[in-house]
Amino acid sequence: MSYYDRLKQIFHDAALSSDIAGILHWDMSTMMPKNSRENRADQLAYLSKVRHELISSKQVGDLINKAKDEQLDNDNKANLREMEREYIMSSSLPSHLVEKLSIASAKCEGVWEEARKKSDFKTVLPFLEELVMLTKEESLILSEKLNCSSYDALINKFEPQANEKDIKIIFDNLEKFLTPLIDQIIEKQKNEEMLPINNLMSQEQQKEIGLFLMQKIGFDFTRGRLDTSQHPFCGGAYQDIRITTRYNEKDPFSSLEGIMHETGHAMYELNLPSKWKYQPAGQSRGMAMHESQSLLIEMQITRSKAFKKFLSGVLKNNFNFIEACWNTDNIYKIGTRVNKSYIRVESDEVTYPLHVILRFNLEQKIFNDNINLRDIPELWNQEYKRLFAKEVDKDSNGCLQDVHWYAGLFGYFPTYSLGALAAAQLASQVRKDINNLDQQIEKGNFNELTKWLKLNIHTKASLYSSNEILQQVTNSELNAKYFMDYIKNRYL
Amino acid sequence: MSYYDRLKQIFHDAALSSDIAGILHWDMSTMMPKNSRENRADQLAYLSKVRHELISSKQVGDLINKAKDEQLDNDNKANLREMEREYIMSSSLPSHLVEKLSIASAKCEGVWEEARKKSDFKTVLPFLEELVMLTKEESLILSEKLNCSSYDALINKFEPQANEKDIKIIFDNLEKFLTPLIDQIIEKQKNEEMLPINNLMSQEQQKEIGLFLMQKIGFDFTRGRLDTSQHPFCGGAYQDIRITTRYNEKDPFSSLEGIMHETGHAMYELNLPSKWKYQPAGQSRGMAMHESQSLLIEMQITRSKAFKKFLSGVLKNNFNFIEACWNTDNIYKIGTRVNKSYIRVESDEVTYPLHVILRFNLEQKIFNDNINLRDIPELWNQEYKRLFAKEVDKDSNGCLQDVHWYAGLFGYFPTYSLGALAAAQLASQVRKDINNLDQQIEKGNFNELTKWLKLNIHTKASLYSSNEILQQVTNSELNAKYFMDYIKNRYL
Repeated sequence: MSYYDRLKQIFHDAALSSDIAGILHWDMSTMMPKNSRENRADQLAYLSKVRHELISSKQVGDLINKAKDEQLDNDNKANLREMEREYIMSSSLPSHLVEKLSIASAKCEGVWEEARKKSDFKTVLPFLEELVMLTKEESLILSEKLNCSSYDALINKFEPQANEKDIKIIFDNLEKFLTPLIDQIIEKQKNEEMLPINNLMSQEQQKEIGLFLMQKIGFDFTRGRLDTSQHPFCGGAYQDIRITTRYNEKDPFSSLEGIMHETGHAMYELNLPSKWKYQPAGQSRGMAMHESQSLLIEMQITRSKAFKKFLSGVLKNNFNFIEACWNTDNIYKIGTRVNKSYIRVESDEVTYPLHVILRFNLEQKIFNDNINLRDIPELWNQEYKRLFAKEVDKDSNGCLQDVHWYAGLFGYFPTYSLGALAAAQLASQVRKDINNLDQQIEKGNFNELTKWLKLNIHTKASLYSSNEILQQVTNSELNAKYFMDYIKNRYL
Repeated sequence: MSYYDRLKQIFHDAALSSDIAGILHWDMSTMMPKNSRENRADQLAYLSKVRHELISSKQVGDLINKAKDEQLDNDNKANLREMEREYIMSSSLPSHLVEKLSIASAKCEGVWEEARKKSDFKTVLPFLEELVMLTKEESLILSEKLNCSSYDALINKFEPQANEKDIKIIFDNLEKFLTPLIDQIIEKQKNEEMLPINNLMSQEQQKEIGLFLMQKIGFDFTRGRLDTSQHPFCGGAYQDIRITTRYNEKDPFSSLEGIMHETGHAMYELNLPSKWKYQPAGQSRGMAMHESQSLLIEMQITRSKAFKKFLSGVLKNNFNFIEACWNTDNIYKIGTRVNKSYIRVESDEVTYPLHVILRFNLEQKIFNDNINLRDIPELWNQEYKRLFAKEVDKDSNGCLQDVHWYAGLFGYFPTYSLGALAAAQLASQVRKDINNLDQQIEKGNFNELTKWLKLNIHTKASLYSSNEILQQVTNSELNAKYFMDYIKNRYL
């Protein structure tokens, strides 16, 4: 057996341990009895340990070096490159640090839940300080191994090869573009009449419609499910993809668009190439590419006029929602309404990037400028005012709103907007490659679209970098102009 | 760290891997999309491998020998004894044999499903031959290690310390007692009027009543669930016990008594001592003791007149089933009706042991007398005729009815009836220790009963052998006379 084949066996086992953890996580959020939490934590910690021992051993490092001298084709070279990436990420960190980080983030997240309820940053501050201190230790170690800045090292955990400098250029342009535009759009929309949704829609009906739409998009229910959880997600295991949503009877679009978003993630996972099953090169590319798939479906497609025409027909003909508020134009207006929200997850696609830019700017201050963390609320509010020309009323609507930092997820936020930009770039290409896409969507026919995504994105898995994939598909690396054109086109 | 403490850490990890497999098995039977089966098999095989590598290494054998010289109290000695038992069972078998057995049983089970549908033993015969050949190899290796007969080694996989010779004496007596008695009971019941259940009871109603009864018995829903599956079972993980049932709208008692049966299993698991969490001594005792807990609840309690009085009241007052067929006397008659069924799982508690004796006798022929497996249908039918004085009409009602042999589970069947005998013995003691048990049950008060079971059985886990536990609680090792007395008392 070659050195490379021995590595394949090790990473095969590591992938299975991740898959198993994926099912346990799904179960924990959807099915698990509440007092089984402690034992589930034991199970997950054990699986992490097993996985860590598998891929971070000195033996794996030696095998990788020896395998580099073996004859491999390009795809297998890519797989070896991804193995090395996982090995470096995993082996660099001493296990006592990994354990401390895991305990500190679990603690901090628990305190944050209470702190957010009371809008009281001070209670969570000492826990955040501990967590940031450990994260800095982590980022320092990783930055040396990856030969990049500390903050870059954190971003790389979620999106390989992305970096602060490039993101900053993109985000600065985006900010300059969006801030004046948002006021313009809000002013324009003021004069548009929009009927409120008066009917309540039951959870059962929302679920039925959601399942109907998933089926239309091509979600394979023999290899996946839809369930309910407090925070929507796409999880599960290889060939067993489980998405979740939550229902609000007064706001059916929140669950329906949420389901479409997660379906976009799910289609990516379900279409990964079976040839690379359980191998690093067979995993989905980073979080930005993943988010591009969910946002392409949710924003580019589900919020398009063509889709709303299809949806309005479905609501009328299949589910008997016949009032005027369910008309195509009206539900299109609802889906494209722009608002200066305090809350990121409640915001529209136009203001959303500003929410991300705010967090990106603050993360830079935390990891590059070593600010005192007690200043976070003030810095947040200054930054919000700068971006939105509006005062934050309380910290629960400000720096306490998202779990990410309090769960130790620094460097994650930028991937949301990188994903939105990539989605617009890909959608622009799709519309070139499929002439009559809108007519197809109006009829609820998503075959050509999903075939295109499968061929151009999903089956490429991690064989190439995100930018290589974009280059292959759109003849350009990531470029914000597609997003800007799309926003102007839809909203002006 | 002492040698023994190192062993505790290893068996702690092994227990977690079993727990994780328990959740994956539950998910596979209740939630998993159907085309995820192959990947789930990969995950389970991986967990088996991890567990096998953990507890069957030479290092574990050495640690056990060294730990025997360390100072341990009786409970820790018992834990070490159970560790050694698991080590011997696991380390004795070469991994290629374990793998072959796993593949052969998966294959054979698949073919059996089809063979049963067509009542065609011949199609499954070659697969059964392969599986029995491998099982004989397994039993030979284990019998040398355990210093017992081949068939005893198989029985020991499910019920430690049980043996063929003792079981044969018990079963021979039981057969002599039951065969004349069954005709007598059937003759007697012929003259009793019994109203059929005319109402259909919806799945939702059955589930609601089932949940109500589980709660009454004391099932802790913060550490467990009830779901639906094709074959009812009790599974899950430590502090996360999940039972299942199936519903038949025409026969509500089938699901209700099934739920009570699984609740008996679940209470055992939920009450295991937290002091011995994740340790071999903290596991439930063998399958016979487990079955004693499910049968005590299902047969001794749920089918008693006192319980039927309580249930009839619940059906009338809480669920509005007011027709005469739901009266105490009538539902008691339904629950104690004796019939010569072909099918073990549809049979009553009086004829049930004969079904088990039939299988026990045939397993002895297979493993002691090396019969030609093609003669199984004929031998089965002869044995059925001898025991029930009735001809088997087709093999799907005969030797093809149970999955056990075709899944490689030889030596398992006897534990069902050993469990029934233990249940009667324990119930006899409970009625001595709790004077007014029936009055409590009539009122739906199960507190004293469940406290008694927790104290006398559940919390003893595997710290003692089954017979030691019976001796401590009832002043006698397993003795069939309690079962015989109970049957005469209830049915004559």
